[in-house]
Amino acid sequence: MSSTQALPLITPEAPETAAPCCPPLTERPMNPEEAETAARMFKALGDPVRLRLFSAVASHDGGEACVCDISDVGVSQPTVSHHLKKLKEAGLLTSERRGTWVYYRVEPAVLAAMVQLLGTR
Amino acid sequence: MSSTQALPLITPEAPETAAPCCPPLTERPMNPEEAETAARMFKALGDPVRLRLFSAVASHDGGEACVCDISDVGVSQPTVSHHLKKLKEAGLLTSERRGTWVYYRVEPAVLAAMVQLLGTR
Repeated sequence: MSSTQALPLITPEAPETAAPCCPPLTERPMNPEEAETAARMFKALGDPVRLRLFSAVASHDGGEACVCDISDVGVSQPTVSHHLKKLKEAGLLTSERRGTWVYYRVEPAVLAAMVQLLGTR
Repeated sequence: MSSTQALPLITPEAPETAAPCCPPLTERPMNPEEAETAARMFKALGDPVRLRLFSAVASHDGGEACVCDISDVGVSQPTVSHHLKKLKEAGLLTSERRGTWVYYRVEPAVLAAMVQLLGTR
């Protein structure tokens, strides 16, 4: 199992601003550190169930969802939790407990960073 | 080893036009088929060495590179070839043999599809 630390993709001080690890792919070859950071992010979306959960959160009313809203992807509750944890570790989701439920929200700055990375000059 | 078929991300008839498999993540939850297709694409970029090779091709003069141009990522030639093959299978690179060398080129329509997928409404 790889390290579970959060990605330094966005600065903790300014979570609303995309400060990607890496330049656009077309600008220059990535160095090893940049590639490690960005690959972790892509890998997190490289699983079909995880991607469905991620899109379920991203497309839910208000851009957030609790587990109760997004568990209809045909896998067990522990598997759902496992995947949500992976998405959080990659910095793609944030979560907040309110009463009984934990609510998940997409981190828009990380999506913006990925778009910038994939965008052309 | 999973299937090695090319992704149906772009229509063969119109390779210049992005015709993504999937709506933006924020639009609606992905169905299983869409998620399978898109996850394969993200997974291909979910490896640091593969990502460095991909950015080396993407940022090379004219948007294409031969293996001779991009082999300085600190892995063996067979490993480079393996990763380039994976990127081709995911539809992210195309290749063409000219004389002694095989030239690799980034498929812009696939990048555009990924950007659209990650983009917000």
